[in-house]
Amino acid sequence: MLAEIITIGDEILIGQIVDTNSAWMAKQLNLIGIKVKQITSVSDDVDHIIEALDEARKRAQIILITGGLGPTKDDITKITLARYFKMGFRRDEETLKHVEGIFERFKRPMLEVNRKQADVPDGCTVIKNKNGTAPCMWFEDHGDIFVSMPGVPFEMMYLMEDEILPRLKKSFKLPVIYHKTILTANIGESFLAQEIEEIEDSLPAAIKLAYLPRLGQVRLRLSASGENESALKHEVDHYADLIIQKVKPFVVIDEDVPLEKALLDLMEAKKLTLSTAESCTGGYIAHLITQHPGCSKVYEGGAVTYSYELKESVLGVQKTTLNDFGAVSEQTVKEMAEGAVKHFKTDYAVAVSGIAGPDGGTPDKPVGTVWIAVASKNGAEAKVFNFGNKRAQNIERSAIAALNMLFTRVKAESSK
Amino acid sequence: MLAEIITIGDEILIGQIVDTNSAWMAKQLNLIGIKVKQITSVSDDVDHIIEALDEARKRAQIILITGGLGPTKDDITKITLARYFKMGFRRDEETLKHVEGIFERFKRPMLEVNRKQADVPDGCTVIKNKNGTAPCMWFEDHGDIFVSMPGVPFEMMYLMEDEILPRLKKSFKLPVIYHKTILTANIGESFLAQEIEEIEDSLPAAIKLAYLPRLGQVRLRLSASGENESALKHEVDHYADLIIQKVKPFVVIDEDVPLEKALLDLMEAKKLTLSTAESCTGGYIAHLITQHPGCSKVYEGGAVTYSYELKESVLGVQKTTLNDFGAVSEQTVKEMAEGAVKHFKTDYAVAVSGIAGPDGGTPDKPVGTVWIAVASKNGAEAKVFNFGNKRAQNIERSAIAALNMLFTRVKAESSK
Repeated sequence: MLAEIITIGDEILIGQIVDTNSAWMAKQLNLIGIKVKQITSVSDDVDHIIEALDEARKRAQIILITGGLGPTKDDITKITLARYFKMGFRRDEETLKHVEGIFERFKRPMLEVNRKQADVPDGCTVIKNKNGTAPCMWFEDHGDIFVSMPGVPFEMMYLMEDEILPRLKKSFKLPVIYHKTILTANIGESFLAQEIEEIEDSLPAAIKLAYLPRLGQVRLRLSASGENESALKHEVDHYADLIIQKVKPFVVIDEDVPLEKALLDLMEAKKLTLSTAESCTGGYIAHLITQHPGCSKVYEGGAVTYSYELKESVLGVQKTTLNDFGAVSEQTVKEMAEGAVKHFKTDYAVAVSGIAGPDGGTPDKPVGTVWIAVASKNGAEAKVFNFGNKRAQNIERSAIAALNMLFTRVKAESSK
Repeated sequence: MLAEIITIGDEILIGQIVDTNSAWMAKQLNLIGIKVKQITSVSDDVDHIIEALDEARKRAQIILITGGLGPTKDDITKITLARYFKMGFRRDEETLKHVEGIFERFKRPMLEVNRKQADVPDGCTVIKNKNGTAPCMWFEDHGDIFVSMPGVPFEMMYLMEDEILPRLKKSFKLPVIYHKTILTANIGESFLAQEIEEIEDSLPAAIKLAYLPRLGQVRLRLSASGENESALKHEVDHYADLIIQKVKPFVVIDEDVPLEKALLDLMEAKKLTLSTAESCTGGYIAHLITQHPGCSKVYEGGAVTYSYELKESVLGVQKTTLNDFGAVSEQTVKEMAEGAVKHFKTDYAVAVSGIAGPDGGTPDKPVGTVWIAVASKNGAEAKVFNFGNKRAQNIERSAIAALNMLFTRVKAESSK
């Protein structure tokens, strides 16, 4: 079963917002056996939207549409869908009551534009949007299903989870899709490909292997779709095991989880605790870790020490170290990590200090120079990296390198 | 002049990665007067890619393609483009030398698949990719321009900035596009629309107004395109001023910057310093702030205090406060903010403590309960919020609410 996602709104096309909805939706659809054939972002333009709807239904039977449902004049999805399906409008009383309830709850007077949110094309099924004023609309037309949802991520997410996915499961007999992902680190894509070439060549036609590289990591994903879940799983897992055996030193984990989640799981299993001491990554490592529910079993907290003063007062870095070697140095970053272990009373700590840029570089420490240290009761180890001169990329790559170093160290020390 | 962006790769369609490239590219294209008509994500499938190329060139004259250029077997962009333009392959010597140089630098043996990265369709112009092994390829066909770039964000970004954008500027006489964005907070989209209805109705046809809502904020964007930059600017700025005067209490800033950047600019202008004390937001506020170059003029650092112990030892929260009221309470969050001001020696601090979920809720403090405090030398103020039961959304909304509270407080106190 194929689906397409159409996002409506100039804000994506002028680059004001990143479309995070589509990736989330695609992931959920995949889990229930619906493949996304194409994702299309179009402007707030009636003809363009209609063209996209026509093209999408040639390729797929399920068309999920987000955006363009707000109360203001630039939101034209509803009008466009009514025209496309040749429907008139009716006021949906239940939606009206719901919208009135929301305005009452927030003690705000209700405007005519808000009442109009309850007007819907008269041939669609209205699905209540508990978290907002724009209702979700479900259309069926010549065997195709079109669903229009608001573009606000959390409104869309609730609707998908509570309403749309269950209805799609009921509407179609869906195949099983089985993915198995292996996260590797410290090996390049082409070397990995060379190592597992024989296994790759021996894969049955029904199993697809994809390489998903990302800053210091490559994910290998085996996928198959069919009818019989346990047979699929059995076959895919067999090839996954062959790959894991072949490139074992580089395998972080055989699950589709981010590196920091693999780290948390490993540390939780070994009952180890962690703290962070960040300078140039500015809290990003802490953020990556604390995205994950249950992280508090491992993660105690950390410091973002941008200034010299905080490096001294919070982490106990020596003033002489900072003066003699600078904030971006092996000595400082080791003291930061050791200080975190000591002051935050954790088994491990990771520290990062670098020049994120675009300014602040010197000839011997150019922008992108980043020192990373990992400390445990066995002492601190540090490495220097150079990640180039883009700030966002420096922060991202420093965080991944830090997590990688930490993972490697914890794995080595805890398997002794 | 219209462009389309096509991203190639199953990883976007199965939701494994979010397409951040397209938004960035769209923004850059807009700045030089090229409008993006559509963004399309397609799978690693020759026929599907060819269909997307055919559809895109019906609507636009510039087609920018990312992804599918890696050395492994699932990367088929190059083969597809050669077939589409009916070209053979040639080995590009300069690319080969460059790839060999990279492998030498990293002291890695070179494989045949890496050498193949230098094979290109024989009718394209090769553009050197300084940051990777996959070359960028520029095709011209019946007046249309097709550019194929790697999907790795920083490789694509360098290529766009250094090579593609300058070449596009040379290739076309581009119109000027002028945007003016007004960031508002603490007012809903429909109330904003009602407030400025008369101004909106009086806008000339050439000026478009868009409402871009996002968690507690609405951006108003006025756009116009034409030939004469100063005339466009003059007219758009005139209407922007009318809007700003009409909704002044809700205007954060009349620039297209994120809330935290507006805050940093305000605090820098007033020579004020800032620290953070985060529990449930886990470093996300620090990360938002430290994304911005020059933030160190304002931001000294902060603490991520997940555990009770760190709330006490780093921020000086009283043990009795934690025991009597709990970590998620007005008393604790105020002490966190006051502690940050005191221990980190800053003019302002913001503190957040809440139950991000999915676990940890109680009947009187359900998941989503978040206390936020702002402290300065004039004392601490706190507010409670409830953001629902999704962890990622709680973190995001808590951060925005905290920045909003901080901005409002700093603005009020610094204008006295």
